[in-house]
Amino acid sequence: MLTFVGLGLYDERSVTVAGRDAIAAADRAFAEFYTSRLVGADVADLEAYHDTDIEVRDRAGVEQDPGPILDAAESGDAVFLTAGDTMISTTHVDLRLRAEERGIDTRVVHAPTAESAASSLTGLQNYRFGKATTLPFEWAHGADGVPGSVVDTIEANRERGLHTLCYLDIKVDHPRIEGDEYMTASHAAGLLAEHWNPDALGVVVARAGAPDATVRAAPLETLAALDFGDPLHLLVLPGDLHHVERDALVGLADAPADLLE
Amino acid sequence: MLTFVGLGLYDERSVTVAGRDAIAAADRAFAEFYTSRLVGADVADLEAYHDTDIEVRDRAGVEQDPGPILDAAESGDAVFLTAGDTMISTTHVDLRLRAEERGIDTRVVHAPTAESAASSLTGLQNYRFGKATTLPFEWAHGADGVPGSVVDTIEANRERGLHTLCYLDIKVDHPRIEGDEYMTASHAAGLLAEHWNPDALGVVVARAGAPDATVRAAPLETLAALDFGDPLHLLVLPGDLHHVERDALVGLADAPADLLE
Repeated sequence: MLTFVGLGLYDERSVTVAGRDAIAAADRAFAEFYTSRLVGADVADLEAYHDTDIEVRDRAGVEQDPGPILDAAESGDAVFLTAGDTMISTTHVDLRLRAEERGIDTRVVHAPTAESAASSLTGLQNYRFGKATTLPFEWAHGADGVPGSVVDTIEANRERGLHTLCYLDIKVDHPRIEGDEYMTASHAAGLLAEHWNPDALGVVVARAGAPDATVRAAPLETLAALDFGDPLHLLVLPGDLHHVERDALVGLADAPADLLE
Repeated sequence: MLTFVGLGLYDERSVTVAGRDAIAAADRAFAEFYTSRLVGADVADLEAYHDTDIEVRDRAGVEQDPGPILDAAESGDAVFLTAGDTMISTTHVDLRLRAEERGIDTRVVHAPTAESAASSLTGLQNYRFGKATTLPFEWAHGADGVPGSVVDTIEANRERGLHTLCYLDIKVDHPRIEGDEYMTASHAAGLLAEHWNPDALGVVVARAGAPDATVRAAPLETLAALDFGDPLHLLVLPGDLHHVERDALVGLADAPADLLE
């Protein structure tokens, strides 16, 4: 059996009880932290909390050489751990399909995601979000400014009155940089202010899932000058606002009320 | 302090460890189950698991008469429990804003949502979903068939190549019916087959978050004739499919491969 367990958004207690129980019941625990990391817990914290060894794999160890993980899942119970929910992008679908092809049962234990938390913390309704997008570091997309596809997504959503969740680039163990790099919401707001619209309303979500999670709504130009502290950050570009959403941004995110008229 | 704790998708073990700890630390625990219910646990199960009394409130007891909840949060630590993530639609934003206005600190403990699970279980990428929609019971929207707004949402998403998550109507404690009523995915597929397009591909997600979660991809007309068992059900109407998404629907959801060419 191969069980994909999402670790959630922040630390060792962000996993569900069902996920914790799956880890406790497993013969071996694998993990990857190249797609995302828990900001509030490192591998040693997780190992101590779950009282188990966690074998961390890099991208090649999952995508090119999944054999050892599949062997463990074939001969016993293995869990595969990732931050957030394990399977919401296709990164690990391939591993799941390979397991199924070998006749190994698979199961997914869900966890909170940044996507849901962004809606939950801002008071913006989940069913009024359009397609999400990701803002890459300038050096990572090989051009200055903001890729046209990001602006296109925001504008296509706004034409339909919809909000846009903008994920911000994360580089973990990247060959071109030392250490990890997380794009800040200030940096993202600055890019969008310069290359799209400085007066547009943005909503920063910092450290979703953490005890000190913060939201702040203001024009992009204003957000660009502020410091939102430790990662992870997200940026939401609202479309049309219902009155409850407007109240939420004023009451929970310090939005200037006159800006939302 | 008023802490909104999401209970997640299925049973008493679908809450996060952080959520469980918040419940344990609270002086009083309130809950509502009129927006959604845990299919795998009732209030007695939750009370036994958390070893606490849970005071269940109906809609009027939250929206018209929130005073007792706010009083408890002012004089001590109160938790407010709901299925899924508590705050992703605006239902409880009003309660949070009232608490903030009275100077009561609020906090949100996130949980897995149907939205994330739908993407996770089907292998359809989360950032390729457009706006979500809800298919109401025919009697609830006062007309036969499918509301034009539902079809408009699906088609506007498909024009941009995007998937649509279609929530299915839930009536809990509704004055016009006895017991609870959950629209099945078969019923939804039948409505969309008749009033929209019988040949369109649909993906049923049944019991997301439960150990026996099931996904099945087929033409709407085919899905309409199948039985997917106990609630909750969701229906996804895919847009364009990337090759990994296609592989996932064939490998994980029994999609007929020739349909996806």
